[in-house]
Amino acid sequence: MSLLVVGSLGIDTIETPFGRVENALGGSATYISAAASYFVAPIRLVGIVGGDFPREYIEFLESRDVDLEGLQIVKEGRTFRWGGRYKYDLNTRDTLYTELNVFEHFDPVIPASFRKTTHVCLGNIDPDLQRRVLEQIEKPRLVVGDTMNFWIKRKKNELLRTLKLMDVLIVNDGEARELTNEPNLIRAAKGIIAMGPKMIIIKKGEHGALLVTEKIIFSAPAYPLEIINDPTGAGDAFAGGFIGWLAKTDDHSEENCKRAVIYGSALASFCVEQFSLNRLKDLTPIEIHDRFREFRELSKFDEEVMA
Amino acid sequence: MSLLVVGSLGIDTIETPFGRVENALGGSATYISAAASYFVAPIRLVGIVGGDFPREYIEFLESRDVDLEGLQIVKEGRTFRWGGRYKYDLNTRDTLYTELNVFEHFDPVIPASFRKTTHVCLGNIDPDLQRRVLEQIEKPRLVVGDTMNFWIKRKKNELLRTLKLMDVLIVNDGEARELTNEPNLIRAAKGIIAMGPKMIIIKKGEHGALLVTEKIIFSAPAYPLEIINDPTGAGDAFAGGFIGWLAKTDDHSEENCKRAVIYGSALASFCVEQFSLNRLKDLTPIEIHDRFREFRELSKFDEEVMA
Repeated sequence: MSLLVVGSLGIDTIETPFGRVENALGGSATYISAAASYFVAPIRLVGIVGGDFPREYIEFLESRDVDLEGLQIVKEGRTFRWGGRYKYDLNTRDTLYTELNVFEHFDPVIPASFRKTTHVCLGNIDPDLQRRVLEQIEKPRLVVGDTMNFWIKRKKNELLRTLKLMDVLIVNDGEARELTNEPNLIRAAKGIIAMGPKMIIIKKGEHGALLVTEKIIFSAPAYPLEIINDPTGAGDAFAGGFIGWLAKTDDHSEENCKRAVIYGSALASFCVEQFSLNRLKDLTPIEIHDRFREFRELSKFDEEVMA
Repeated sequence: MSLLVVGSLGIDTIETPFGRVENALGGSATYISAAASYFVAPIRLVGIVGGDFPREYIEFLESRDVDLEGLQIVKEGRTFRWGGRYKYDLNTRDTLYTELNVFEHFDPVIPASFRKTTHVCLGNIDPDLQRRVLEQIEKPRLVVGDTMNFWIKRKKNELLRTLKLMDVLIVNDGEARELTNEPNLIRAAKGIIAMGPKMIIIKKGEHGALLVTEKIIFSAPAYPLEIINDPTGAGDAFAGGFIGWLAKTDDHSEENCKRAVIYGSALASFCVEQFSLNRLKDLTPIEIHDRFREFRELSKFDEEVMA
């Protein structure tokens, strides 16, 4: 199977109560690709950067077997840049600045060699661009997409059109509620399924994730980290682990999607242990296995022995 | 085994987006007792009411095999009364009024026939009173206690003394953070274990519950209810189901405590389906079994089949 990832590549400056990094690698497509790279190779990436995008970041992506044929490099342009500061409890953050730069006029052109990709992961970009990507892919077997409150507010109709083309939508709990105007999360999830996707995954940060289809509900725990250095990219690492597992196994059954949610959760839990993509650089298969099993231990309980 | 429950009995007026009840049965001891009554009988209740406490509420408690020898009835007094209004998302509520009435001078006197009780559940009352209860019990095998932000703010030193006498503390996530000044929930849980209890259960409402000991962390999912009519008493129903199962089985191993968390979660999920204690009146063992198994289905996933 093959995997196409479309989204942003960025240069981030991040402050958390535990430290600060300047001009670090960021962007949804990078986190998704790095996480997915532990399951499937090569990763086909489509995105855009400026001439200022550091050579070492290109080399890092290549080291993770990311195929950069679809990476547009605008020599005279500047890369998308974002600065953010997380508050004490890490649950809220202030955006210090957002410079769209070359990303503002991003037109995702899918190279001919990528058009038969079986699995597609659409990072959080304009829903019109997400749709434009899908128009260029020949019958993908699985389309997983992300979105955010920005698009729910500004381009709801466009988003609703794109949702009809997605198999799986991944959003956080606030976005699910906002998209449906429904405070009850389970009803919100079902409301989104009525909009098109066959499956919805609701990320709840420190409370884990929910997978909902018409038939099942699966509740995945959060990994009990005592130290979270940098929450940036956790949602994208989740998406990468999730679709990476599905692309590797090509089994989209509900049982295997549950495992994919756990792999997504595992990659997200690694991601936040260090700043930027540092923890996603050199994970070992054993580390990933072990964490998968720790997730089982966390939520497992035996049948009762009723007297 | 035997179970003693100490806490409030009240008369509640509750408004939620889904309805309103006036002068309904309320109070922590009633919810705890009703939930626990599905596992162990009789329940030994110690509390206080006024002469206005309706005869039908006494009859309801008797119908659930609650032993009322320790219920003080102050003929010329009025019962504790509380009025609350839940907001649209049910996660926040306004207290409309609190009349302590006879509860203000509650002195929990444990009848001689209750002093050898093996399992004790301390509802959310003044930590000094909780300690006074324990001084009257001969070597209980398990003490489970609740508290709230009110006592954390006003009587922290008294609470810290009482915590040393508890085996299990049950609190919600906000209370765990407040008690320890620690935003990370896992570190907060471990901080509370350092204060005395061998086990802490953190209730997270729609996100389930965490059980933490020095050795293990267990994450229980929330039951995915689409309709929640009245969240009142959910935490107490949880405590009742939890200690009820432990009193029934007298097995305090970590594996059995995980099951107890699921029984607690099951009773809490029934509780919120209807107003006041209405759903806790006539559950069947089959309904409780079935819900336990639904909790398993919710969180179960198979070992991965790595290629």
